[in-house]
Amino acid sequence: MTDVMRTVYWDNGAVAMIDQTLIPDDVKILRFTNYVDVVNSIKVMQIRGAPAIGVAAALGMALAAQSIQADTYEDFMRKFELAAEEFRISRPTAVNLFWAVNRMMQIAASVPSLTDVRQRLLAEAIDIQEEDIAINKMIGENGAQLINQNDTILTHCNAGALAAAGYGTALGVIRAAHESGKSIKVIADETRPRLQGMRLTAWELVQEGIPVSVISDNMAAWAMSKGMVNCVIVGADRIAANGDTANKIGTLGVGILAKTYNIPFYVAAPVSTIDFALADGSGIPIEERSSDEVTHINGIRIAPEGVGIYNPSFDVTPAEYISGIITEQGVLYPPYAISIGCLKN
Amino acid sequence: MTDVMRTVYWDNGAVAMIDQTLIPDDVKILRFTNYVDVVNSIKVMQIRGAPAIGVAAALGMALAAQSIQADTYEDFMRKFELAAEEFRISRPTAVNLFWAVNRMMQIAASVPSLTDVRQRLLAEAIDIQEEDIAINKMIGENGAQLINQNDTILTHCNAGALAAAGYGTALGVIRAAHESGKSIKVIADETRPRLQGMRLTAWELVQEGIPVSVISDNMAAWAMSKGMVNCVIVGADRIAANGDTANKIGTLGVGILAKTYNIPFYVAAPVSTIDFALADGSGIPIEERSSDEVTHINGIRIAPEGVGIYNPSFDVTPAEYISGIITEQGVLYPPYAISIGCLKN
Repeated sequence: MTDVMRTVYWDNGAVAMIDQTLIPDDVKILRFTNYVDVVNSIKVMQIRGAPAIGVAAALGMALAAQSIQADTYEDFMRKFELAAEEFRISRPTAVNLFWAVNRMMQIAASVPSLTDVRQRLLAEAIDIQEEDIAINKMIGENGAQLINQNDTILTHCNAGALAAAGYGTALGVIRAAHESGKSIKVIADETRPRLQGMRLTAWELVQEGIPVSVISDNMAAWAMSKGMVNCVIVGADRIAANGDTANKIGTLGVGILAKTYNIPFYVAAPVSTIDFALADGSGIPIEERSSDEVTHINGIRIAPEGVGIYNPSFDVTPAEYISGIITEQGVLYPPYAISIGCLKN
Repeated sequence: MTDVMRTVYWDNGAVAMIDQTLIPDDVKILRFTNYVDVVNSIKVMQIRGAPAIGVAAALGMALAAQSIQADTYEDFMRKFELAAEEFRISRPTAVNLFWAVNRMMQIAASVPSLTDVRQRLLAEAIDIQEEDIAINKMIGENGAQLINQNDTILTHCNAGALAAAGYGTALGVIRAAHESGKSIKVIADETRPRLQGMRLTAWELVQEGIPVSVISDNMAAWAMSKGMVNCVIVGADRIAANGDTANKIGTLGVGILAKTYNIPFYVAAPVSTIDFALADGSGIPIEERSSDEVTHINGIRIAPEGVGIYNPSFDVTPAEYISGIITEQGVLYPPYAISIGCLKN
């Protein structure tokens, strides 16, 4: 499955993706021929995960480019910029989205030819998709060295193949360790409210044949206190220049617990997740999503009427809780201001 | 509602209780005339919460006593002990259950008369029920002094009227602060897997007119880091002689987070929750419940097939994380070995 499953890809004039809202009950491929539907798929989280959102935005912009009717290159660029803005406002936290949109805009700006620009944009989007899998495999290779024989690894949310074009970041490290012959086990936080850990991470690992136990998020402290966890690996939605890391809500708590119990806590992410312009995590916009995500499960209301709901979709883990950041260029260690500053970008 | 709602009570020859598995969708009173059904109601958590389990066990033993056919007092005691054992094995962690069963056994032993023992046991059980509410009100009074005007209080699980004969322990403190005229708000952890925070605590507070916001358990760290929480109050299922406290799974994590952010973390519980014979928390039995509690919500499977599940129902928060223990005899402060040692029991 490692080399087969693609989360999002170009499919003969369309953007194809697995509908992640249906996993694990159903594996259905969506096929969009209108870029507006790709924007919507990001908003409603049919596709989610920072790298996957970036790839979807790139492919979606290539799709937009194909359909833009324009008489001149300038007219094309004006319309293309409007499409870009629709992608930019689809979700605020994951920086890979902005990175991908910017990369596509730079390509468009560098090919001032109405004849050539659409084809060049499509080629670039497919490059981004293919690079993403290659980058994840490098992340996996770099991170697998941090995993010991018989380790139990706790992960939060889904930073797997489904969160990228394929293979995955945090789960990429776990896959690579498994592929290298190490016997490992995974504890997956279920990750309320949307249960990506239970629905997506557990589903990927079961298919991979890697033993996985699911826990409620609030069981992590007890599991750690009982010596059941050897290390933590999570993904990231945005990493500031000092190493502060935005990731799925709950990551901060896991980071604090890991530090309390002296358990290594690693972030696995491509360099495109680093927001070099951001000094620290205080500037990362945190998306708040609909209260329905908390009050309802599978469409059934579980909350009494009349309660307030607070539903931040991400939190920021300060760099002090992060033992290392696993990238395709190697594992970064504190002080991150220096190790991140040395990266090629 | 404060003086009206009774969670579990003697009702003209029967044990009556609110079926807590149906809240907030339905408020249904169960009425049991066979003690075996009371034992079962504890096992399946139609009644839950350490003090409420104690009261239910006392009333259930009174019910058992009424129905025992015996020719002699010795015959009665033999049969009564068998009923007591059924209550003792119904749930392992909350010590109030054992405290109530022991108290009923002592009464039975002290009234060696087949003519009188049944009536004396019923009177004792009703005393336990009524005392529980009076004790909770004293806990509330003692704890309310720790709450400041405009405080936002985070609580975990349900230590409310539903967790006791009425009024509640942690929510008793919140009720008392509210009744004293303080403007306060509550953040309720939803408390997976059984969602007692969302279903029970939020329901009680909405009826009381106390503003409440529900969060997923994994949002507590972010809320604390943002300065949204002024103090934490939780209940307890068993407190060791050194202050180590077993409570609903997830409490340990909240305790660690509170310490990290210098937020006071209080436990509210009657003295009957203290296991004076237990030196520290390592000896507290931790119940593990069915994996269905994690994999299913409202009867619908949310987990993929093939995953393992770990479902400890409680954890133990070491005394070092606890700022104070609020009891009916006053607020205990560290070192708890001394403050607990000074209690009357």
